[in-house]
Amino acid sequence: MKNPHILISNDDGIHAPGILALTSVAKEFGQVTVVAPDSPQSAMGHAISIGKTLRVEREELFDGIVGYACSGTPADCVKLATGMIMDEKPDLILSGINHGSNSSVSTIYSGTLSAAREGAIQGFPAIGFSLTKFSHEADLTTAKAVVRHLISQAISQPLGPGQCLNVNIPYLTLDELQGMRITRQAMGQWVEEFDQRVDPFGQPYYWLTGKFQLEDEGQDTDEYALRNGFVSITPMQHDLTDHSKLPIMNQWDLGL
Amino acid sequence: MKNPHILISNDDGIHAPGILALTSVAKEFGQVTVVAPDSPQSAMGHAISIGKTLRVEREELFDGIVGYACSGTPADCVKLATGMIMDEKPDLILSGINHGSNSSVSTIYSGTLSAAREGAIQGFPAIGFSLTKFSHEADLTTAKAVVRHLISQAISQPLGPGQCLNVNIPYLTLDELQGMRITRQAMGQWVEEFDQRVDPFGQPYYWLTGKFQLEDEGQDTDEYALRNGFVSITPMQHDLTDHSKLPIMNQWDLGL
Repeated sequence: MKNPHILISNDDGIHAPGILALTSVAKEFGQVTVVAPDSPQSAMGHAISIGKTLRVEREELFDGIVGYACSGTPADCVKLATGMIMDEKPDLILSGINHGSNSSVSTIYSGTLSAAREGAIQGFPAIGFSLTKFSHEADLTTAKAVVRHLISQAISQPLGPGQCLNVNIPYLTLDELQGMRITRQAMGQWVEEFDQRVDPFGQPYYWLTGKFQLEDEGQDTDEYALRNGFVSITPMQHDLTDHSKLPIMNQWDLGL
Repeated sequence: MKNPHILISNDDGIHAPGILALTSVAKEFGQVTVVAPDSPQSAMGHAISIGKTLRVEREELFDGIVGYACSGTPADCVKLATGMIMDEKPDLILSGINHGSNSSVSTIYSGTLSAAREGAIQGFPAIGFSLTKFSHEADLTTAKAVVRHLISQAISQPLGPGQCLNVNIPYLTLDELQGMRITRQAMGQWVEEFDQRVDPFGQPYYWLTGKFQLEDEGQDTDEYALRNGFVSITPMQHDLTDHSKLPIMNQWDLGL
């Protein structure tokens, strides 16, 4: 693929170090267009803005790269980019680098992955990148090397239409990194606790807090790879049908 | 299952006719707890509120049934219900009846289904109900009959832990209804158009509008069932791994 046009988004907002790092690597390979939320949109799932207006501000990010800061969700950003902002269709959509992992069930809550998934729904190849470190001060050297390697691969051996990868990168030095693994999403859940407080007007309010609980012993999962120092690469889909249940359900008595 | 405890949520808000209809049917079968958004939360995907406070207001809905109106998303409502509001774990979680269908790719954008999915992630059986009619004035007679039938089935032959069903009901009379079908999610996408306007201050803003495009010829899909007058019942999962891609990806050169 010569001079590919790469669309970039994220959920941490257009000024987060992760998206700037991703953009700086992606522009080594072709033309980039950055369309990302104007404020952090973590845990937005696959929300879109229906019945709400959207705003878009054009601004220079760095080195002459123009970005579009959007008032909506990550999925809105991809819709705006492909439906209005870009003159041509993207060859590849990248999201991230997210500050914090998006493995196991977090793939469902993740705004980063909703941007990639929105691209895949529209038939474009897409990759979401996440680093297992929340801090915006995190060293992105290893993450950038992994991103460079995978963009290079995705361009030399293009992903299929609508193929979507979820890439999680452990926060390690390149020397410490054990390699890369193809994985499946680990089963698990966030077990919530609610921190109840009282506001200055005597009314209760709550903070959602949670602890991740892994419910999967598999050594082929994203969680296992990350915990053992490997980059995790999970192929994603947006068909939510549980096909394994269809044969038995087809024997149900469906009379009304 | 004797006197099951049924948790009810939705995305149209706690005062929508759909959730009141669902609650009135569910209470024929056991104890109900209603925890739903205090305002409409359509197309919220699987968003959750991290770093934002949540409010909960207790109120009587009708016939002595108490509801909890929550300031968060549908997924937040289920987390609040199971993590804080309910004294015991629910035997069944119901979401809806949504005003508007949630078939094909809309399952990903749907707040209604995110409430059911959140329950399933936590290991509870869950069903999302949607009616193919947006109006809050819609006649809910057929929908209530379908809901009654399926709750009855889900109680007499309990769904497994974490089993999740997406039920779409065509807007027809009971006489017109052709029956029920087990289906898979049809492939398709919303093709967006952005309606650009200028605000009173001279600044541009956008409305997201879209048209659904079916990309699936299958006669075993949710869309096919609905278009032919059948209730569609799709088993849902929250493992987003594209397992079909794993064998070929395991042959990739993963050297860094």
